[in-house]
Amino acid sequence: MPAPATVLVFLDPAFEGGRVADASKPQLMATDLGATRGDGVFESLLAVGGRPRKIQAHLTRLAGSARLLELDIPAEDAWRRAVETAIGEYRRQDPAVTAAGGTDDDEVVVKLLVTRGPEGAAAPTCWVQASAPGAAGRRQRETGIDVILLDRGYDSEVGERAPWLLLGAKTLSYAVNMAALRYAHEHGADDVIFTSADGRVLEGPTSTVLLAHLETTDDGAGGVRTIRRLITPQLDSGILPGTSQGALFTAAKAAGWELGYGPLEPKDLLDADAVWLISSIRLLAPVNHIDGQEIGTPELRRQLTAELNALFATIE
Amino acid sequence: MPAPATVLVFLDPAFEGGRVADASKPQLMATDLGATRGDGVFESLLAVGGRPRKIQAHLTRLAGSARLLELDIPAEDAWRRAVETAIGEYRRQDPAVTAAGGTDDDEVVVKLLVTRGPEGAAAPTCWVQASAPGAAGRRQRETGIDVILLDRGYDSEVGERAPWLLLGAKTLSYAVNMAALRYAHEHGADDVIFTSADGRVLEGPTSTVLLAHLETTDDGAGGVRTIRRLITPQLDSGILPGTSQGALFTAAKAAGWELGYGPLEPKDLLDADAVWLISSIRLLAPVNHIDGQEIGTPELRRQLTAELNALFATIE
Repeated sequence: MPAPATVLVFLDPAFEGGRVADASKPQLMATDLGATRGDGVFESLLAVGGRPRKIQAHLTRLAGSARLLELDIPAEDAWRRAVETAIGEYRRQDPAVTAAGGTDDDEVVVKLLVTRGPEGAAAPTCWVQASAPGAAGRRQRETGIDVILLDRGYDSEVGERAPWLLLGAKTLSYAVNMAALRYAHEHGADDVIFTSADGRVLEGPTSTVLLAHLETTDDGAGGVRTIRRLITPQLDSGILPGTSQGALFTAAKAAGWELGYGPLEPKDLLDADAVWLISSIRLLAPVNHIDGQEIGTPELRRQLTAELNALFATIE
Repeated sequence: MPAPATVLVFLDPAFEGGRVADASKPQLMATDLGATRGDGVFESLLAVGGRPRKIQAHLTRLAGSARLLELDIPAEDAWRRAVETAIGEYRRQDPAVTAAGGTDDDEVVVKLLVTRGPEGAAAPTCWVQASAPGAAGRRQRETGIDVILLDRGYDSEVGERAPWLLLGAKTLSYAVNMAALRYAHEHGADDVIFTSADGRVLEGPTSTVLLAHLETTDDGAGGVRTIRRLITPQLDSGILPGTSQGALFTAAKAAGWELGYGPLEPKDLLDADAVWLISSIRLLAPVNHIDGQEIGTPELRRQLTAELNALFATIE
């Protein structure tokens, strides 16, 4: 059967669980500042088997983004109820899934959106959207991706000194991120890793950068042991804190990985044993090539990706 | 009587003059990429006495922005007809204005908007909006404004080397521009002039920077003559080409002004005889103070503003 239709649930004080709206009909005012100014914030997360993953991390980041844009958004409880309503409505359209109680394939993309509302509005416009995951993202988890490095234009310290640039907020103003992805596709790549004007590795347009280094050392008893190190760019370089990276780091640490935080340079990516772009919907996408250069080996990428996927699957 | 209600006219091949839609009802899909990604472009212009000003310059810039975002937009004729419909509908609500054939107060703000449409859409969503000008902008033409300088984060050469940053496009992703204005208001200022990471003067969040220098020289016949020079930052520094600045420069040249193009540094602003932020809706807003320092003198600002306003009034 076809994928269920997109579900919209608006946060509305008059509806405890949110107000379900028909996604096939216009629901936004044309004067909404989200549409006319990209003035708002959002989160994207994955629900698996009906359960939204890392919901608290997403709600915390949404609140942080809203604070940076001075948007007064509803309390977490209202968002949780609307998310539940949206997932429930979405899955109700697909009896096979709910009868089976959820399968591996039972993934729903859930977006939380906030706009400043029409000019002069007393409160922001807030809604939750549930929709089908794209085929490309799921395929890329398996096949991996080719990436190009693109200059983000900012130096890695500007976020600290210029809060009006909103570098720590996940805003609706994503035109540059979308343009960078189009540029990559036109140049034979699948995705992008942004670098700063001062040559640091930042993030993907819709993902966090992660790399692994394996190091073999003497185990002190005549044998060898392998140190496994997972590294991500440092947060104060003006990038978005990755909810998936954060959760994976916690799980990896418990499994004996060492953790590291940048500064990273492109050379560090090229020298890594594996590189991933990690995000909430596509999850771990292993990077096969960066600017045409292979990262690690196919076997190493496969093995490390499988290991991290297993860790990631344990995350609530 | 109250200001007429906002008018919406969607560009629609089935309606020659555009499809008039009720602005008091939702007209946009919640999945439109304009609302969810700030993925689109726009123009704002002023209609005076029923005539849209500098319409060709705005249509040209809209087409340029759309090209940078790879948006395939309708031909200029369709936009012109929709603009005409929107202005006509708007003015029809106010019989006093149309009976008088238009007065000085007969200003209508006209916006041209393009979004990429809902994900997977075959064509962008395009509409024209006609609405009442805000009181603040009209007041600021008279009273002038206080401005602060804020770092835009980019160096002045990034636009040339990184087209994916869309620096020459007027996109819907204006969250940073809006945040910069909020920052200014919270710090007692009315507006912002962005500077580049390498210390150049760029532009306002919604305006072009203009400055005047007067210089007295020997006229070669025993007397003195005053050279009047109008200067704006050079275009290749990653700023938007100002339609009002462009038109005013043409008129000023014909009136004997010398014209200059940056690079400009903050010092040049502080040393100027007058500074303005110029834009299509607010027109010329004289800058009284920059970071607390007075620019020129009240008399000089008044006199030069009156002179440029008179020139600007001649523009079609």
